Amino acid sequence: MSFFDKIKRPTLLLDEHKCRENIRWMAEKARRSDVIFRPHFKSHQSVIIGGWFREEGVNAITVSSVGMASYFADAGWEDITIAFPVNLREMDEINRLAGKVTLNLLVNSSETLQILEKNIRNQAGIFIEIDTGYHRSGLTVADSATIERIADICRGSSNLHFQGFLSHFGETYRASGRKDIEKIYRYGEKQLKQIRDSFNSEGSGIISVGDTPSCSVLESFPGVDEIRPGNFVFYDVMQLEIGSCISDQIAICIAAPVVDIYPDRNEVIVHAGAIHLSKEGILSNGKMIFGLVVNITEEGWSAPIEGCFVSNLSQEHGIISLGPSLLQTLRPGSLIGILPVHACLTADAMKSYSTFQGQSVSMFTGF
Amino acid sequence: MSFFDKIKRPTLLLDEHKCRENIRWMAEKARRSDVIFRPHFKSHQSVIIGGWFREEGVNAITVSSVGMASYFADAGWEDITIAFPVNLREMDEINRLAGKVTLNLLVNSSETLQILEKNIRNQAGIFIEIDTGYHRSGLTVADSATIERIADICRGSSNLHFQGFLSHFGETYRASGRKDIEKIYRYGEKQLKQIRDSFNSEGSGIISVGDTPSCSVLESFPGVDEIRPGNFVFYDVMQLEIGSCISDQIAICIAAPVVDIYPDRNEVIVHAGAIHLSKEGILSNGKMIFGLVVNITEEGWSAPIEGCFVSNLSQEHGIISLGPSLLQTLRPGSLIGILPVHACLTADAMKSYSTFQGQSVSMFTGF
Repeated sequence: MSFFDKIKRPTLLLDEHKCRENIRWMAEKARRSDVIFRPHFKSHQSVIIGGWFREEGVNAITVSSVGMASYFADAGWEDITIAFPVNLREMDEINRLAGKVTLNLLVNSSETLQILEKNIRNQAGIFIEIDTGYHRSGLTVADSATIERIADICRGSSNLHFQGFLSHFGETYRASGRKDIEKIYRYGEKQLKQIRDSFNSEGSGIISVGDTPSCSVLESFPGVDEIRPGNFVFYDVMQLEIGSCISDQIAICIAAPVVDIYPDRNEVIVHAGAIHLSKEGILSNGKMIFGLVVNITEEGWSAPIEGCFVSNLSQEHGIISLGPSLLQTLRPGSLIGILPVHACLTADAMKSYSTFQGQSVSMFTGF
Repeated sequence: MSFFDKIKRPTLLLDEHKCRENIRWMAEKARRSDVIFRPHFKSHQSVIIGGWFREEGVNAITVSSVGMASYFADAGWEDITIAFPVNLREMDEINRLAGKVTLNLLVNSSETLQILEKNIRNQAGIFIEIDTGYHRSGLTVADSATIERIADICRGSSNLHFQGFLSHFGETYRASGRKDIEKIYRYGEKQLKQIRDSFNSEGSGIISVGDTPSCSVLESFPGVDEIRPGNFVFYDVMQLEIGSCISDQIAICIAAPVVDIYPDRNEVIVHAGAIHLSKEGILSNGKMIFGLVVNITEEGWSAPIEGCFVSNLSQEHGIISLGPSLLQTLRPGSLIGILPVHACLTADAMKSYSTFQGQSVSMFTGF
């Protein structure tokens, strides 16, 4: 029985070659730019894919939860930044981790840092997150008093060590094209530099940035010390729309069984719904879409088929809008491929990957 | 350590009392209306919650995938309808199930049915799905030739038995208020009756419907034989907006640790993102929201707090928009509750529940 025939249900296919190429390309760019490459592992959440990063010389990683940090620490990763504001309810696990690996934490409040300082029993690095315009989490240039207090508490602590300023230029996810992305990067980097220059009396404190659009589009990273991109490991339809990648770089795809064919509507129904792809949509040519459609074969998948897309999702159903020529080639039980809008959410929903070599690639399944 | 103190990470709380009340109320309504109650278990996906249905006399259930059917069959459920078009790639598992339980399948194409007929080795019931206006899957009144062919194939088969017409009035999810829902129900029920009357020369074939808005709002179910609601087991913000429930009936809630507080923005950041709540949003008073906010205590949660909602989600972050009075009561490490927009997707994402009695309620974790 061929690999293809073994696919019974919605299955997340991973093109190992494309994925490794994405990793190699970004690692090489970081080396060339002389910045620390600390990739965000929240996108793939897999120790196996982590191993592919290791082969490219990566030793330091970023994650987005304490649970994910523990998963990678247990797999031998020894230098981990949790790029999510410290959750004080996880103090026990933070202590366990800090005793085991080189751990960096994100703290944006002096109250949190004081409680952390009182309860931490091992060494840990502290980053302050700077909000340069995304307005999710982080302090701004205007919060200099809080930034100073955080640096002060670290100075007086025997366990906590100030590491620098970290930012996620998430506005780039709403950008369109290279120029827009570069503008956001320059604007953010300028603010980060301004903040570091004000507080850097001891010469310490790195600048760490990390969105996939900036890291993909920029040739080098002037003004920063570390990059933490994550999504680039797979890319997706959102990054394609932004202009961060070409479709050939997209490294995951859901294989979806066709269950119903409606020629009058130019639609087919597949088993691949919101619980597989996630409910993340994106406006593309004025239409909300939930994925692009590709042909899949034993060896890989095609470029996106023009005019074909996932037009709606419910829990298990995906509705595919497509032209009559593709529709005629499909039968009940055929497989089509769907490139996800947001690869990180799709990977998290699917909880494992299948390579074209028939390997099952496991991932973190907790929170 | 109290139950509350044990919550470290985003946790899906289940109010067993509210959930059992929802089940009891719908079971009683079905009995009063003299219709078969075959609840959709895709919403909770849990054998433990399934047991609460059994206590209300439920013996027949609906699921949305073959995997889910196997999970419930293994737990002793013996009468299962898979209300999702047959996926021919799962023939082996369908055969196994059909040999073990009373199994009903959904078939909307004569081609699928012919292949099914050739490969099925055990008895199974066949429903035809009728699309009365939702335009997801199903045949329409205009597809009488296909409907006739499907009935014909069943007549000639020793294993497949025509059971009737099944519909999901999904348009009710876009309705606002009782009148709108009733109108959709009457319109759909009329079409179903028309189709049954044309094909019911043998007097067989039931009419099965099942959306939560109709089943919640209607006092009885004239013209139908079976109801299959699922979401009502928990309800959610979407059902609240539609007018299918009151907020006090919502039976699940995510407990989210507060990690950052931004008084200037009237926002707090919680650990509860798209991988916990799902990325399903809903327009409420002209704003896209991803959940409503409640206070949680050791015993349960409050009504939604006016003017507080989840305004955005990324993978792990939730941004809560709230007034200064609530904001002042919160500290890093506080817990707030979030009522989900779409309970079925949130439950599926979280993969288990915690009751206020400290019980962990497991669920199906496959596809």
